[in-house]
Amino acid sequence: MRLAELSERSGVSTATIKYYLREGLLTPGRRVSATQAEYDDEHLRRLRLVRALILVGRVPVARAREVLAAVDDESTGLTGRLGAAFSALPRGGHEAGQDDPATVDAAREVEQLLERLGWRGAREIDNRSPEHHSLVASVATLIRLGYACDADLLLPYAEQAERLAALDFEALEGYPTAVEKIEAAVVYTVLLEPVLLSLKRIAQENESARRYGVG
Amino acid sequence: MRLAELSERSGVSTATIKYYLREGLLTPGRRVSATQAEYDDEHLRRLRLVRALILVGRVPVARAREVLAAVDDESTGLTGRLGAAFSALPRGGHEAGQDDPATVDAAREVEQLLERLGWRGAREIDNRSPEHHSLVASVATLIRLGYACDADLLLPYAEQAERLAALDFEALEGYPTAVEKIEAAVVYTVLLEPVLLSLKRIAQENESARRYGVG
Repeated sequence: MRLAELSERSGVSTATIKYYLREGLLTPGRRVSATQAEYDDEHLRRLRLVRALILVGRVPVARAREVLAAVDDESTGLTGRLGAAFSALPRGGHEAGQDDPATVDAAREVEQLLERLGWRGAREIDNRSPEHHSLVASVATLIRLGYACDADLLLPYAEQAERLAALDFEALEGYPTAVEKIEAAVVYTVLLEPVLLSLKRIAQENESARRYGVG
Repeated sequence: MRLAELSERSGVSTATIKYYLREGLLTPGRRVSATQAEYDDEHLRRLRLVRALILVGRVPVARAREVLAAVDDESTGLTGRLGAAFSALPRGGHEAGQDDPATVDAAREVEQLLERLGWRGAREIDNRSPEHHSLVASVATLIRLGYACDADLLLPYAEQAERLAALDFEALEGYPTAVEKIEAAVVYTVLLEPVLLSLKRIAQENESARRYGVG
């Protein structure tokens, strides 16, 4: 398809598509004449991913380029590529604390939690993963504010998180290639996180009505 | 306790506490002399809530005042107070769309979802709740970007959200008074949302390792 059709099918203006091409977020189309290039469904798919990252994930262009590079890096396995793509995504966590007592406590509780869960990736990712840092920082904030937050409290949440992750990967099975799987994983992570939090808050309203009555 | 002790026990500077007092985020202490006031455990607890809202929830001071007013409003039931407090919390959603086709589709899918779930609160909150708007806007974004997002896809996530909400409310049972219940609900919502998303991403790494191998 030509640029105009790519724009129409994606709902993204030609000016924006040209900007993404210049920034290396989209691979160039196949030249068919001095002034025209041909684009395919892969461009359309990639364009959706770029929009999800930038519009919804509010990922800066340079960061989006890192995510895409991780998606495309065929030198490593699927888990490594997913991990690299995810590690470039923004997260809601807090600034990682210093080695204050709350952070030390939080790190110990998180370690104990991961051990009890027996998550296979946990040992490998451990201190390298930005998610791990993020989790420790969030737990440390709770502890610092005087709220109980130990492995016992976290365990049932982690078990639910495990089921949610399984749901995500179930959905990925439908995508045939590694690139498509990783793209879909990134998109669903970015787009379904706000959906999940909205659903949880609505569920809280419902649970409240159930327990304490309406009004 | 005196201001100095309140500061020490909460880890919040006296200058900041005085600022919160001026802004009406904390009720004044009991005057014991011309220059001294006495604070109690209720002040300490409220101070933690204020810190959670402002530091972690990044709630502006004026919004924090609204949340606290809702927490303290004894004229309405627990569910109404919870709902009012939650509605003043920030949410990760997107700007509510116009009545474009994607938003119309999204509203229909969300309605169908809530009907299938049979959430009791759902009918009452429906169009009034900011969470409902937020959910419709997020789903509309997915649809607009060309990703499938219907009631079938959302249902298992909603069921997990239901379990997560039940966990939150389980934890609330330990708090004796209505005010403490609502305070705890707000704090755990603000503080546990980033924890949950971190856990989900770590669970994804684990699930990926399980399905596709490490590396």
